[in-house]
Amino acid sequence: MYRSHSCGELRIAHVGEEVTLSGWVQVSRDFGGMTFMDMRDRYGITQIVFNMDDDAQLCEQARKLGREDVIKINGKVRERSNKNPNRDTGDIEIEVTELTILNESKVPPFTIEDETDGGDDLRMKYRYLDIRRSPVRNNLIFRSKLAIETRKYLDQEGFIEVETPVLIKSTPEGARDFVVPSRMNPGQFYALPQSPQTFKQILMIGGMDKYFQIVKCFRDEDLRADRQPEFTQIDCEMSFVTRDEVLATFEGLTKYLFKTLNGIDLPDFPLMSYDDAVKIYGSDKPDTRFEMHFVELNDVAQGKGFGVFDNAELIVGICAKGQASEYSNKDIKKLTEWMQRPQIGAKGLVYVKFEADGNIKSSVGKFFSDEDLKVWGEKMGAEPGDMLLILSGETDKTRKQLNELRLEMGNRMGLMDPTVFNPLWVVDFPLLEWDEESERFHAMHHPFTSPKKEDQDKMLTGDHATMKALKADAYDLVINGVEIGGGSIRIHDRELQSKNFDLLGFTKEEAEEQFGFLLGAFEYGAPPHGGIAFGFDRLCAVMNGVNSIRDFIAFPKNNQGRDMMIDAPSPIADEQYDELSLKSTVK
Amino acid sequence: MYRSHSCGELRIAHVGEEVTLSGWVQVSRDFGGMTFMDMRDRYGITQIVFNMDDDAQLCEQARKLGREDVIKINGKVRERSNKNPNRDTGDIEIEVTELTILNESKVPPFTIEDETDGGDDLRMKYRYLDIRRSPVRNNLIFRSKLAIETRKYLDQEGFIEVETPVLIKSTPEGARDFVVPSRMNPGQFYALPQSPQTFKQILMIGGMDKYFQIVKCFRDEDLRADRQPEFTQIDCEMSFVTRDEVLATFEGLTKYLFKTLNGIDLPDFPLMSYDDAVKIYGSDKPDTRFEMHFVELNDVAQGKGFGVFDNAELIVGICAKGQASEYSNKDIKKLTEWMQRPQIGAKGLVYVKFEADGNIKSSVGKFFSDEDLKVWGEKMGAEPGDMLLILSGETDKTRKQLNELRLEMGNRMGLMDPTVFNPLWVVDFPLLEWDEESERFHAMHHPFTSPKKEDQDKMLTGDHATMKALKADAYDLVINGVEIGGGSIRIHDRELQSKNFDLLGFTKEEAEEQFGFLLGAFEYGAPPHGGIAFGFDRLCAVMNGVNSIRDFIAFPKNNQGRDMMIDAPSPIADEQYDELSLKSTVK
Repeated sequence: MYRSHSCGELRIAHVGEEVTLSGWVQVSRDFGGMTFMDMRDRYGITQIVFNMDDDAQLCEQARKLGREDVIKINGKVRERSNKNPNRDTGDIEIEVTELTILNESKVPPFTIEDETDGGDDLRMKYRYLDIRRSPVRNNLIFRSKLAIETRKYLDQEGFIEVETPVLIKSTPEGARDFVVPSRMNPGQFYALPQSPQTFKQILMIGGMDKYFQIVKCFRDEDLRADRQPEFTQIDCEMSFVTRDEVLATFEGLTKYLFKTLNGIDLPDFPLMSYDDAVKIYGSDKPDTRFEMHFVELNDVAQGKGFGVFDNAELIVGICAKGQASEYSNKDIKKLTEWMQRPQIGAKGLVYVKFEADGNIKSSVGKFFSDEDLKVWGEKMGAEPGDMLLILSGETDKTRKQLNELRLEMGNRMGLMDPTVFNPLWVVDFPLLEWDEESERFHAMHHPFTSPKKEDQDKMLTGDHATMKALKADAYDLVINGVEIGGGSIRIHDRELQSKNFDLLGFTKEEAEEQFGFLLGAFEYGAPPHGGIAFGFDRLCAVMNGVNSIRDFIAFPKNNQGRDMMIDAPSPIADEQYDELSLKSTVK
Repeated sequence: MYRSHSCGELRIAHVGEEVTLSGWVQVSRDFGGMTFMDMRDRYGITQIVFNMDDDAQLCEQARKLGREDVIKINGKVRERSNKNPNRDTGDIEIEVTELTILNESKVPPFTIEDETDGGDDLRMKYRYLDIRRSPVRNNLIFRSKLAIETRKYLDQEGFIEVETPVLIKSTPEGARDFVVPSRMNPGQFYALPQSPQTFKQILMIGGMDKYFQIVKCFRDEDLRADRQPEFTQIDCEMSFVTRDEVLATFEGLTKYLFKTLNGIDLPDFPLMSYDDAVKIYGSDKPDTRFEMHFVELNDVAQGKGFGVFDNAELIVGICAKGQASEYSNKDIKKLTEWMQRPQIGAKGLVYVKFEADGNIKSSVGKFFSDEDLKVWGEKMGAEPGDMLLILSGETDKTRKQLNELRLEMGNRMGLMDPTVFNPLWVVDFPLLEWDEESERFHAMHHPFTSPKKEDQDKMLTGDHATMKALKADAYDLVINGVEIGGGSIRIHDRELQSKNFDLLGFTKEEAEEQFGFLLGAFEYGAPPHGGIAFGFDRLCAVMNGVNSIRDFIAFPKNNQGRDMMIDAPSPIADEQYDELSLKSTVK
């Protein structure tokens, strides 16, 4: 037996007991005739003591131990003279009578502490050492709990977890597939699922009524900072439901998870249309922890001789409360330069400061009188001390730019409190996006999303302008500016689905080849259905108020898609190429 | 709103209520002025009634409905005059006042009944219709429950579910990998995991202490009858444990699952050594629902002039209780032929019948006296009416053949009661198997399995014969002759692991290239650890007393690895080849 108790378990009530513990040497301190050691496992840290007077040989042995050695000890629990109130086991220590070295450790390449001296690459290569650190371990434990509670809730709501296949079919729609050559079917490939979308719809047609799955999905994308080639979704689908029933279910799930894991009661989630979100926040995933709403100024700022504004499609600004005195000309210049970086691409930035003493200062003071600027201020709810920041230009671009500025200002002004969670349903997305370049529509969500009921007839018969204006019965859950998930009511009618494939530029043959099974299934009694998927990694991160999902993945890949620990991907043997009827073009 | 209740929900207490139901038309019966219809969803079947006298137009509309049309109805719950006690909703019916056709269905290619007229291929192609059938649906629901209860148990036992990556590294050891070309790393491939073995060991080295995962695994094998290229495991690992602690934990899990899902209290699981299992049952996964133990007869059957026996390495038989009168000479001949099929390959079959009247009949009567045969009978516990069946030849082959015969006889004699569950731990497997052909050892479990403690020093220093005799600290859980899972205490020492790779024919470079990360990890304080994996699909099947795992997989593949519904695998586009730096050698 390696242990009678864990290293996080012993309390004052255990004093006098003979115990056996196993774990890692965290740290060791010699004080004259005594050696104190912290022994660590997943459950905690226990202080153990070796006494030179009691057993010199044992104490000498203990003094040779190094950090991260794995040991087993027997001993007696005794009360500590100097208790450590910050540690659950801080009232006791173990007087060691027997020591076994289970395994030795080389000196770790970085410290196994909450704050480590190891850089990212080193931590990834030695991920097993990184996982010994409490922050990483606690993240993985949080993730495990989140999954369990998610399943508990959905099970109670009557959802059935069904495993859908990982080896499926490659389709050119959407992101790029990872593919898997089939040895038994030379020249053919499986694809790894980007999501179980069609399978969950098939399950609805199969009468499963309520499906969910916590499931790995795969996208072969060029990896941006916080993307992973494999990621996890809470994937759900329901039959015989309207949008509001789906929203109620997953609002319930989200509230339950925040309550159970974070101890937080979320308020009811407001609904906002896509159009409003874009108009008020310049984003379909607004951070609603703070207001700083967009105010459009075309009606009051045009026709005064300032050409930039006069020629702009949109003039729109935000009011930064109390910032007038915070920004020197130099600060404004810096902020303007920040906005002009290629990532954002603003041409310029107009400010108006309503100073506390009543003075008004503005970069466009020579075009606009104080009276003019006061009108802007009123429109934007500015009070003395506030500063307006205004952009102008082409509508979509300008909104995107102002969104960046709003978030930057929110951050600088400390308005993004990580302990506050503001959920929001964004609804009524456009169904289709027109792509000028390829001269075809793209599905804003995916090709299975239903137009809103009132738009269905229009979709079957309408002209190009009508198509552009179609609204989807789609919804996203946004928390603190992060898209947690999204979904839609699906098309369940063959004709409507075929029409959608048409609009998306599929030929009849392509639609049939790729999605024939689904179109066929629609002819055998497909029920109305809809669903949603939450990004599980993302949800973990947001619930912990952090930005990076990598912290919640046990073995993440780097930006080149590499696993640094196992060193994958890697070359395969010639025989493997032969078996798969493949040749490499690079070797 | 599509429904106020499900089709399985309404009871006599609801009589008088206005309700809305949605579901599928199961069957329809016209009786003069009335049309009775069974309406189905996942939750049950409700009878709905249309009355020509009340609303002729509605009734006419209803009469046009066909099987599997999807409808929504409003109506009033009323008590049935002829109740159906076999149905939960059998006390009531709905008087329909409003009917909406939500979607029409073509005539399904097979009947949506418990016993269907659809063949396997048709059922796979139209899996969405197959899933509407209760047996398939109930299997999927069982699977979902089994997963939830497994997680509940392991969570309570302190296990953390950690997701390990799906895109990992190809290793030639074991079965064939599915590989995934990496676009971003031309000429390199990921592999899909055959199991998360090394990752779960890394998690132990990372101090996670107790890990589990219900996880998809992949093997690119030539598919035998009941194998799938992707399958699901309950995968577990524990630190600081001995074998018996692992067994206790997973015996506990198994008992909990049988109790919770099947309402069965399993007895404590006996332990049997691999050597005993092979000697007594001729198999390391014996069906212990019945005895019919092997009895070896070399000492009493040799030296009597019967050359076949005299030259045999092993003479071994079973006693088939009460079968003497059941087998005519013709039956014995047929049984002998069955044993001589190439799948089994027995040379012959010797019988001895102890007839009820005291007569003894045997195929080897001319070599052995009745007295001789009586000695055999005594040794084998034969009573009047019993029949001995005896094989001889090379030890391993003969045992395997007799195992087949024992199972066949057990089946014929009705000894394999599907409602009885006999679990068994098989332990102390050989560590290594010598392969004459390749002149190297193979790992009986896998290369990470530890020799038993007492054999570890022998392994580091021993000669070839010693290696052959090494016992592994490995274990299998067998229920009713089916291997549910297996595991082992792992090596956690670099030297021992390197030695094992040596013995398995790895060069130092190969070992380093493929498993260097694990060998390295062993140097940084790897704790003693061990684990187990259960075949999840297999467990589902065994708990339901059926043989095929395919019944418990929502979207199984056929023997060619094809998904018949979506028609995967399939060719990919030329651009995909280009992006992956690959060329096909078959097109």
